Amino acid sequence: MTGGERAPAAPLRTIRLELVPLDPEADAGPLHRAYGDEAVMRWWTRPACADAGETRRYLTECAGLPGARLWTVRSSDGPGRGDVLGLAGLLGAVDVPGLTWLLRRDAWGHGYAREAARAVADHALGPLGLDRVEAWVEAANHRSRAVAAAAGLGERARLGQRYPHREHPHEVIVLGRAREEEPTAVLGTVVELPVRDVAGTLRLVTAALGARTTFAMGDPPYLAEVGLSPWSGGPRFRLAAMDPEEPPSPVLLHLDAATRLDALHRAAADAGAPVSGPPVLRPWGRREFVITLEEGHELTLSGPG
Amino acid sequence: MTGGERAPAAPLRTIRLELVPLDPEADAGPLHRAYGDEAVMRWWTRPACADAGETRRYLTECAGLPGARLWTVRSSDGPGRGDVLGLAGLLGAVDVPGLTWLLRRDAWGHGYAREAARAVADHALGPLGLDRVEAWVEAANHRSRAVAAAAGLGERARLGQRYPHREHPHEVIVLGRAREEEPTAVLGTVVELPVRDVAGTLRLVTAALGARTTFAMGDPPYLAEVGLSPWSGGPRFRLAAMDPEEPPSPVLLHLDAATRLDALHRAAADAGAPVSGPPVLRPWGRREFVITLEEGHELTLSGPG
Repeated sequence: MTGGERAPAAPLRTIRLELVPLDPEADAGPLHRAYGDEAVMRWWTRPACADAGETRRYLTECAGLPGARLWTVRSSDGPGRGDVLGLAGLLGAVDVPGLTWLLRRDAWGHGYAREAARAVADHALGPLGLDRVEAWVEAANHRSRAVAAAAGLGERARLGQRYPHREHPHEVIVLGRAREEEPTAVLGTVVELPVRDVAGTLRLVTAALGARTTFAMGDPPYLAEVGLSPWSGGPRFRLAAMDPEEPPSPVLLHLDAATRLDALHRAAADAGAPVSGPPVLRPWGRREFVITLEEGHELTLSGPG
Repeated sequence: MTGGERAPAAPLRTIRLELVPLDPEADAGPLHRAYGDEAVMRWWTRPACADAGETRRYLTECAGLPGARLWTVRSSDGPGRGDVLGLAGLLGAVDVPGLTWLLRRDAWGHGYAREAARAVADHALGPLGLDRVEAWVEAANHRSRAVAAAAGLGERARLGQRYPHREHPHEVIVLGRAREEEPTAVLGTVVELPVRDVAGTLRLVTAALGARTTFAMGDPPYLAEVGLSPWSGGPRFRLAAMDPEEPPSPVLLHLDAATRLDALHRAAADAGAPVSGPPVLRPWGRREFVITLEEGHELTLSGPG
């Protein structure tokens, strides 16, 4: 990625909107109509702000993160000209530039979020010279998925996340747009686990993980692939017949079970897989359980803590 | 997935179209206007058909594959009522039900492909009772990506493919739609390679693979993650410090380099990685080269043959 993060943000104009660099002190009042509204904040990383002071402190913090560029979204015509409708911009302190937006509830339904998000994405990939922007949208948040799509972002990956104020984890879609179409360098990785009994291990792990066999070679099989996605492509690993005279060479494989960790634990236990016990919270903040195969391979299934 | 594949296909109606079960004998003539047109067949798995006889044989073959359900797409009103505009349906002999469509060039630009593809997807996930349908669309084929999106399909995975009649491989987007929203069971796998020198191996493999470090713990690092995608999430693997007293436990890891295999080979050689030589075509139909790390780990990079 190249240049320009430190220059002050410039105003951006779209057909119906004006995006004005955020001034947390001056803008917290009008923006609190969004940040203080539970319905607006339903998908946010934190609960609604209790008052305009809390909104101001939160905006000041967001604006101060390295690389952040935030704009208020304002109506540029009509009787409400200049009114603060919401906020859009680029998040700070992220590995990959992150697009963010939010609108007052009474400004929903007019396509303003799409117009603002597209303006920020175009600005980021154009004048700012960034190579890519991405937005993390909760899978169940169909409105924001449509906003991201309208801003030219397509699905790139999925992640599991749990916000501190929420009891349960959720699935996040990473939507991204690159400045230039780029072929994907590496589409996926597939590790090969050497096992004594390919057929038996295949039965065990497909049942334990709710997985499918994407291919099996030989009868009995000497090589088979365990597909972890119901779709073509996606995560997978292989089982390969090992030389029974050789000592096993154990492999450590992590599987991101995202929102399905407890269901997978039950399925694995029901399938008779040698599981370590129920998922436990580990010091690195993930809940995990382990399936240990007889060759010593450890399949660690984890989800957000 | 459930039932019904063997029942004869029923006609489907949309606002402007009628989808009539394919009769290869009767329909090959009019459909040859599509299958014989280089511009229509640009993205197809095979070259344009030379004459109506070849189109008939090809359609007969497609219709005979187990699970195939194909309909001619016909105009249902106006002066051209009943005219065969193209074909839509479900492919046979595929692991995951596959949506297919194609229109005569003079029928492009009216949204007919979207209307037909959506009708087939709705029928597949509704009356036919399928759990999911997917479409494989070349990444550069933006018209078909828009058709798939309009039919409710979203990106699920990417694959590398080479058609027998083409010199170069291409990147395919697997777009899918499920009958019911379903949380992803396992989002990804991350294998841990035990290495003597995490920092040194990290420098080597990130340079060789054009990868990035998504995290590193300790100074010098005892655990680090190599991210193979420029986006958050996506394929990755880890390097973990091994006990120098123990013998190494070599891991075999396959990396799908899709369309970028030759570029990755050059980058790996330039980075001084211990590569096996240029990519070679293996008996299983993939081109491959191998990076062997000093602990015996084999990173096999492969692309379509």
